[in-house]
Amino acid sequence: MTNEQSASARQAPVTVVGLGPMGLALAGALRGRGHRTTVWNRTPGKADRLVATGVRRAATVAEAVSASPVTIMCLKDYETMYEVFGSAGDALRGRVLVNLNSGTPKEAHAAAGWAAERGVSYLDGAIMVPPPMVGHPGSVFLYSGSREVFDEHRPTLASMGDPRYLGSDPGLAVLYNTALLEMMYATINGYLHATAMAGSAGVPAVEFAELAIGWFLPAVLGPMLAEEAPVLDKGEYPGDLGTLEMNLNALDHIARTAQEQGVQTDQPRLMREIAARAIADGHGGKNYLAVFEVFKHQAR
Amino acid sequence: MTNEQSASARQAPVTVVGLGPMGLALAGALRGRGHRTTVWNRTPGKADRLVATGVRRAATVAEAVSASPVTIMCLKDYETMYEVFGSAGDALRGRVLVNLNSGTPKEAHAAAGWAAERGVSYLDGAIMVPPPMVGHPGSVFLYSGSREVFDEHRPTLASMGDPRYLGSDPGLAVLYNTALLEMMYATINGYLHATAMAGSAGVPAVEFAELAIGWFLPAVLGPMLAEEAPVLDKGEYPGDLGTLEMNLNALDHIARTAQEQGVQTDQPRLMREIAARAIADGHGGKNYLAVFEVFKHQAR
Ligand SMILES: NC(=O)c1ccc[n+]([C@@H]2O[C@H](COP(=O)([O-])OP(=O)(O)OC[C@H]3O[C@@H](n4cnc5c(N)ncnc54)[C@H](OP(=O)(O)O)[C@@H]3O)[C@@H](O)[C@H]2O)c1
Ligand SMILES: NC(=O)c1ccc[n+]([C@@H]2O[C@H](COP(=O)([O-])OP(=O)(O)OC[C@H]3O[C@@H](n4cnc5c(N)ncnc54)[C@H](OP(=O)(O)O)[C@@H]3O)[C@@H](O)[C@H]2O)c1
Repeated sequence: MTNEQSASARQAPVTVVGLGPMGLALAGALRGRGHRTTVWNRTPGKADRLVATGVRRAATVAEAVSASPVTIMCLKDYETMYEVFGSAGDALRGRVLVNLNSGTPKEAHAAAGWAAERGVSYLDGAIMVPPPMVGHPGSVFLYSGSREVFDEHRPTLASMGDPRYLGSDPGLAVLYNTALLEMMYATINGYLHATAMAGSAGVPAVEFAELAIGWFLPAVLGPMLAEEAPVLDKGEYPGDLGTLEMNLNALDHIARTAQEQGVQTDQPRLMREIAARAIADGHGGKNYLAVFEVFKHQAR
Repeated sequence: MTNEQSASARQAPVTVVGLGPMGLALAGALRGRGHRTTVWNRTPGKADRLVATGVRRAATVAEAVSASPVTIMCLKDYETMYEVFGSAGDALRGRVLVNLNSGTPKEAHAAAGWAAERGVSYLDGAIMVPPPMVGHPGSVFLYSGSREVFDEHRPTLASMGDPRYLGSDPGLAVLYNTALLEMMYATINGYLHATAMAGSAGVPAVEFAELAIGWFLPAVLGPMLAEEAPVLDKGEYPGDLGTLEMNLNALDHIARTAQEQGVQTDQPRLMREIAARAIADGHGGKNYLAVFEVFKHQAR
C-alpha cells in the first residue's frame, strides 16, 4: 500500500464547490492529503487538472453534495452561495456545509439561518492565507458557528490549514477575517504611500525598504504594536511619554510633506483628521492610542 | 581616572538647545557618554536634573552656542529654530548646527540656506526612536546635508544613536522621517481600527492581538511587505495571483462590515476608494500593488 492509499483509508471523503484560485488550492490540498475529493464549479473546465490527479467532477451541485458528508464551499461571496445551492434542493438535508466565502458578519448570520431551515449543519469560516500557502504549515483557517461540526470534521479541516475555532457566533470568522484584512490593507497602504513620498525625492523603493522593512518594521513598529492591546482593553491612555497634540504636529508635517512633494494627500489628511477628531473629543493630553476611541464609533 | 573622566578626555564638548522630552534624552545620553555638555532651554527649569549630573546651563542662546563646536538643536519645529537662534547673532558664525527638529523637506532646505547665509555649517537630521531608546543600541538617527559635518562629528552623533547618512540633499532626513512616521501611523491605525471591528462583537483587544500581532503580522504581513520593493521599482504589477478587482471585493466587505458593526467608516471607505481609483485608472487586472500608482500622484 502506498502512503497515499493508506492516507485515503483514514481520510473522510470531501466535496469542494467553487474552483476559483482558492477553491483549486483547497481541492488540491485535500486530494494531496488523501481525501476522496469531489468538485463542482460553474465553469466545469477549471476542474480539468484536478481530475487528472484523481479528483471526481460532479455534474450537478446536488450530485456534488451527495458524494461526501462534508461540502466545503469557496465561492465569490454569500450571494453566489444562494444562487449555487438553491438548485441542490433536498440533497442538502442532513449534510454539512462549511462556508469559506468572504463576506460580512450579517451575511454569515443569514447564511446560518438559511442552513438551519434546510436541515443543514453549518460552519462558517475564513481563509487567512493566499492560495499558495494552503495546505502548508503556518496557514491559518478561522471557524465559527457550530462547535460540533468543527470538532467532528476537524481532521478534514486540518488538511487545508491550521483550524482555529473562535466561538459559536457564526459571524466571528468573517469578522476576524475582515479585521485582519483591514489591518493588512492599511499597513500595505501606509508602506506604499511612504515609499511614494521617499520616491518623490528620487529614493528607489529598495533603498527605502532597507530602513522601512529591514529595520523600522521589525525593530520599532512590531514591538510597539505588541504592547498596545492591554492598554486598549483598559481604555486609559496616559500622555506622559507623548501626547496626541504632539502627534497631531507630526501628522501635520506628514500631510504638508505629501502636499509639497506632489504625492497623494487623502491618506495622510485622513490620518491627521482622525487625530484632530480625538483631540476635539477631549483626548488631546492623552497618548496616541486614544484615537481608538474615534475608531470605536461612527462619526456623528 | 574614572571611566567617565577618560571618556571626557576623548569626547568633544557639545551643546543641546531645546529640552523637551527628546532634548532631555539627547543631553542625558551625551553627558552619559562623557561629553562636556551645555544646554539652553526657553524654560530654564527643565535643565535642573541635568545640571545636577554635571551638565552646564547657559544663560543665553549665544552663550550656549559659544560653549561647544557643535550645537544639537531639538525644538518643536523649524519656526521655533528661527525664533530661538535669531537672538544668537554673531555667536553662530563658524559654528556647527545639527538640526533634529521635525518638519518638511522644504523647511529643511530653507534652514540650510539660512545657515549658509550666516556662515554656519549645517546638518539636518531626524530621530527615529522615542526618547527612552536614545543612546541605546538599535536607535537610528538619520542625517542629510553636509557630508563633511557628518564625517567630522560622527563620534558625537554616535553618542546619541546609530547615525545614518542619507545624502547631500538636506531635505532627505526629514523626508525619510516623515515617510517612516506615516507608515507607523497608518499601521497603528489599521491595527486599532481592526481591533475596534473585532471589539464590536465583544472580542477583547488582547484576544484579537494574539492572532493579529502574534501571528498575522510576523507570519503573513511582514514577509509579504519584504517582497514588495523590487516590484514597486519595476512598476509592473501582474495580476495572475490576484487582481485589484478581487481586492476591491474584499475592501467592499471591510467597508460594509464597519458600517454594520457601527465602528468608524472613513478609514475603510478611503481604502476602498483608493482601490476603486486605481481600477478607474485602468489597473483593475493588475495586482493590489498597482495602488502605488495612485499614491505617487496628487488626485486630479
Ligand atoms: N484568492 C485569495 O487570495 C483568497 C484568500 C482568502 C480568501 N479568499 C476568498 O475565497 C473565495 C473564493 O475566492 P477565489 O480567489 O477563489 O476567487 P473568486 O473570484 O472570489 O471566486 C471565484 C469562484 O466563484 C464562482 N462564482 C462567481 N460567481 C458565480 C455565480 N454567479 N455562480 C456560480 N459560481 C460563481 C466562480 O465560478 P467560475 O469559475 O465559474 O467563475 C469561482 O468558483 C472568496 O470569497 C475570496 O474572498 C480568497
Ligand atoms: N518625543 C518624541 O518621541 C520624538 C521622537 C522623534 C522626534 N521628535 C522631535 O523632536 C523635537 C522635539 O520634540 P520633544 O518631544 O522634545 O517636544 P516638543 O514639544 O516637540 O518640543 C519642545 C521644545 O521646543 C521648545 N519650544 C517650543 N516653542 C518654543 C518657542 N516659541 N520658543 C522657544 N522654544 C520653544 C520647548 O521649550 P519649552 O521647554 O520652553 O517649552 C522645548 O524645548 C520635535 O521636532 C519632535 O518632532 C520627538
